Amino acid sequence: MTETTPGWLSADELNAARGQMPILYVEAVPVRVDDSGEVTSIGLLLRIGADGTISRTLVSGRVMHHERVRDALLRHLEKDLGPVALPRIPASLQPFTVAEYFPTAGITPFHDPRQHAVSLAYVVPVTGDCRPRQDALDLVWVSPQEAVSPALQNEMPGGHGVLLKQALAHVGHIS
Amino acid sequence: MTETTPGWLSADELNAARGQMPILYVEAVPVRVDDSGEVTSIGLLLRIGADGTISRTLVSGRVMHHERVRDALLRHLEKDLGPVALPRIPASLQPFTVAEYFPTAGITPFHDPRQHAVSLAYVVPVTGDCRPRQDALDLVWVSPQEAVSPALQNEMPGGHGVLLKQALAHVGHIS
Amino acid sequence: MTETTPGWLSADELNAARGQMPILYVEAVPVRVDDSGEVTSIGLLLRIGADGTISRTLVSGRVMHHERVRDALLRHLEKDLGPVALPRIPASLQPFTVAEYFPTAGITPFHDPRQHAVSLAYVVPVTGDCRPRQDALDLVWVSPQEAVSPALQNEMPGGHGVLLKQALAHVGHIS
Amino acid sequence: MTETTPGWLSADELNAARGQMPILYVEAVPVRVDDSGEVTSIGLLLRIGADGTISRTLVSGRVMHHERVRDALLRHLEKDLGPVALPRIPASLQPFTVAEYFPTAGITPFHDPRQHAVSLAYVVPVTGDCRPRQDALDLVWVSPQEAVSPALQNEMPGGHGVLLKQALAHVGHIS
Repeated sequence: MTETTPGWLSADELNAARGQMPILYVEAVPVRVDDSGEVTSIGLLLRIGADGTISRTLVSGRVMHHERVRDALLRHLEKDLGPVALPRIPASLQPFTVAEYFPTAGITPFHDPRQHAVSLAYVVPVTGDCRPRQDALDLVWVSPQEAVSPALQNEMPGGHGVLLKQALAHVGHIS
Repeated sequence: MTETTPGWLSADELNAARGQMPILYVEAVPVRVDDSGEVTSIGLLLRIGADGTISRTLVSGRVMHHERVRDALLRHLEKDLGPVALPRIPASLQPFTVAEYFPTAGITPFHDPRQHAVSLAYVVPVTGDCRPRQDALDLVWVSPQEAVSPALQNEMPGGHGVLLKQALAHVGHIS
Repeated sequence: MTETTPGWLSADELNAARGQMPILYVEAVPVRVDDSGEVTSIGLLLRIGADGTISRTLVSGRVMHHERVRDALLRHLEKDLGPVALPRIPASLQPFTVAEYFPTAGITPFHDPRQHAVSLAYVVPVTGDCRPRQDALDLVWVSPQEAVSPALQNEMPGGHGVLLKQALAHVGHIS
Repeated sequence: MTETTPGWLSADELNAARGQMPILYVEAVPVRVDDSGEVTSIGLLLRIGADGTISRTLVSGRVMHHERVRDALLRHLEKDLGPVALPRIPASLQPFTVAEYFPTAGITPFHDPRQHAVSLAYVVPVTGDCRPRQDALDLVWVSPQEAVSPALQNEMPGGHGVLLKQALAHVGHIS
C-alpha cells in the first residue's frame, strides 16, 4: 500500500479529496551504484501494516500543494531513509514510468484500496548512510537478482513488486 | 492558461481542491509526422481568453478520478481536435517531461494563476482530420521552425511556449 | 543472434570491422495497440538458424553509413514485416533502452558471438498487414502475458527475451 | 567537431572505417546540480581547433570495441575533466537523445565533416574538482541562461549548441 502523510489537509479533507480526484505521488527506488553507474543493490523498507502483515516497500509519498516534484522526492527520501542518505535526485523530471494505482483492482497492475493515486517513479542512487525512520522497521539492501525473486515479490503487494521490476528493466537488470 | 473542465467536481469543490493539492493534468503536442516518424508540423489551438486576448495552446486537461492517463489523453484530444483526429496515443506512459504550473510565477517556467497543476506531457501524432471544438476558434499547423519563433512564442503564455520547445527538442528539432 | 545484412560492406570488410569497433544496430519490438495506445499483442519472427534450431526474434539490423536511425528502423521493419505493415516509427529517437551485445557472454544480459553490437531499441506499433519476408518463416502475435512466459523466453536466445521484457516493462506490462 | 581518439584502430584503419559505417560515440553534458537535482551550471570545454578557431565543446568520444557504453562515458569524462571530477554516470543507459552527425550538412542539425557518427547523449552531474586535460585549454561553468545565449551558441559548431539546448530542455531549462 502506498505510504501517505496527511500533510496540509486534515484527514477528513484528504479522504474527501481521495474520492474525487487522482492524488499525485512520487515514488523512488533507492539504489547503490558503482563508479560506472551500474546498480549493485536496491534498498527496500520493511514495514508492518495495520493488520500485522509484513511488507517491503519503496520510498513513496504525496506531492504537496505548492511543492515541486523534486522537493517532494527529496522530502520523502529523507523522511524514509534519514537525513544523511544523500540521495541523488535526478536532473531530469522525466520518470521511468507513471504508475497508476486504482481503488479497483485489475485496471492496471497497481492497486490502492484507499484512492486513485498517480505516481511519478524514479530510480534514485543514494550514497550516504541510510537509517529508516517513521513507520519502517528496517531497510535492507538486496541484489538485482534477489529483487525479482518470487519470494521477495510476494512481500510487495499492490503492484510495488511490478514497479520494482520496471525500475530494474529500466536500468538494464531483468531476469 | 491551462484548459480546465470541471468534470466530476462541482465548481466550488474544484476551487477548494485547487487550493489544497496539486491537480494532475495531461498535455499533448499534436503533430503530423512523415513515414519515418519525423515531425513535419505542429498543431496549435487558437483561443480567445476571458479578457479577449488571443492565445495559442496545446491540448490539455485534467485527469479525472478513476480515469487512466491514456484515457484522459484520448478524451482531451478528441474534445479539442474532434472525433476523427485519429491520435496515436503513445504505447508508453513515460512522458517527455513533467511540467509544473505554480500559482506563483517564477518557481518554474510554468505558471497558472488558478492552481498548482502538474502535467504529464506527450508528443502525439494525429493522422486524421482535425476540427477544433469547444472554446477553440481554429487549429493551425505550423512548421517546427515557426513554432519556436518569438512571434508565436509570445502568443503562448504561462509556459506553454516553453513546453512546446521542450517537445521539439525531444523530437530533435530545435533552433 | 542478431540479424545482419552485409549492406555496403563486403563480407570480409564487415568481418574485419566487427573485430575492431562496436557495430550500431536498431531493434524494434513490433506491437499492436488499441485506440488508447495500450499494447495488446507483440509480433515475433520465427526463424531457423544455421544449425536448425528454431528461435523467435525481434526486428533488428545494422544502421548503414549515411543512413538515419529512423530510416534504418523503417527499412528493417519493411524488410522483416513486408511493405504494408505500416509501422509507426517514433517521433523521438530516445530509445527505451540501449542493448549492448558482447562477443563474450556475461558482461551484459546480451550476447552475440560474432561481434560487439550496440542496439538502439524501440517499441513500434504496426497497423497494417504483416507478411514476414527474408529468412523468417512466420510472424506470430502473442499476448504480453505469453511474451514473458518461460517457454517463449527460452526460444529467444542471446538476450532478446530480456530485451522483450524490458520493452514490456517500458509500456507498463510485466509479470 | 566531435572529439576523436584513434584508440585501438590505426589512423588508417579508422579512416577506412569512417567511410564505411556509422561510428558510435557517447556525449556527456557535465553539470553541477543542487541537492534537489536542479541543474545550476553547465561545464563547457574551451578548445582551439587545427585552424586556430576557438570553440566550446561537450565531453565526447568513441565507444571502443568490447567497451560498455557506461565505461566509455566514464573514460571520456575522466580524460576531459580529470581524475577527480567524480562524475555520476546515470543508472539507466536510456539517453536523452541520439545525435546523428552526418558528413553532409543539413540532413540533421548535427554535422561532422570527417564521418557519420551516432552519439548517445547523457546529462552527467559532476561533483568533484574538474581539471581539463588533453587538448582542452580550460573548462568554464556557465548558467543555463548563458548556455543558450546566441554568443555562446555561435562558439559551438557542428550542432553541439543544439545538443546543449536539447539537454537543457530535458532538464527543464529552456528559453
